[in-house]
Amino acid sequence: MVIELATVAVVEGQQQEFEQAFSIAQQYLTGATGYRSYRLLRCLEQPNRYVLQIEWDTLKSHTEDFRNSSAYQAFRQLVYSFYAGTPEVLHYEVLQLPSISSV
Amino acid sequence: MVIELATVAVVEGQQQEFEQAFSIAQQYLTGATGYRSYRLLRCLEQPNRYVLQIEWDTLKSHTEDFRNSSAYQAFRQLVYSFYAGTPEVLHYEVLQLPSISSV
Repeated sequence: MVIELATVAVVEGQQQEFEQAFSIAQQYLTGATGYRSYRLLRCLEQPNRYVLQIEWDTLKSHTEDFRNSSAYQAFRQLVYSFYAGTPEVLHYEVLQLPSISSV
Repeated sequence: MVIELATVAVVEGQQQEFEQAFSIAQQYLTGATGYRSYRLLRCLEQPNRYVLQIEWDTLKSHTEDFRNSSAYQAFRQLVYSFYAGTPEVLHYEVLQLPSISSV
């Protein structure tokens, strides 16, 4: 499982429109091969900053399968005009750390 | 519920030591009042970049209750020396968007 964190700055004053567009766009994401779940996070300190957190089966599920799909084009077309600048997109693995209770 | 995303750059070459220190430090986090859960994420594209994602009951649980506790001091002392620069710490709410299936 790989976690995508896409950090997006939305054009000031267009947050509500972005969220409405995302409500429509999400169907193209949630139907994708290798998609597991997502959460859209809105920043408390910077109200036009959002983090789209998506869990994928593998890195390839996002970077190849989804990005080369027509669903991605449909998704992007709905939300892209609200972006102020290019989103920062990075992928992460969840560390499984042992819990060590003392030094 | 509020999500903290703390983005940390770890000193190059000290990732393994940081993860070991975190395994010990986490006890001071998971016992905190208002703490719900955490995940430590390691970036695939930038191997010394980590995101510590913590779910808190409220913003205050982190910014007041935890940060003013002795547990925070113990936590910070264990991991701080591995940080290259100041972590970026921001808080987020999870948006509950309706799923709109067509325009």
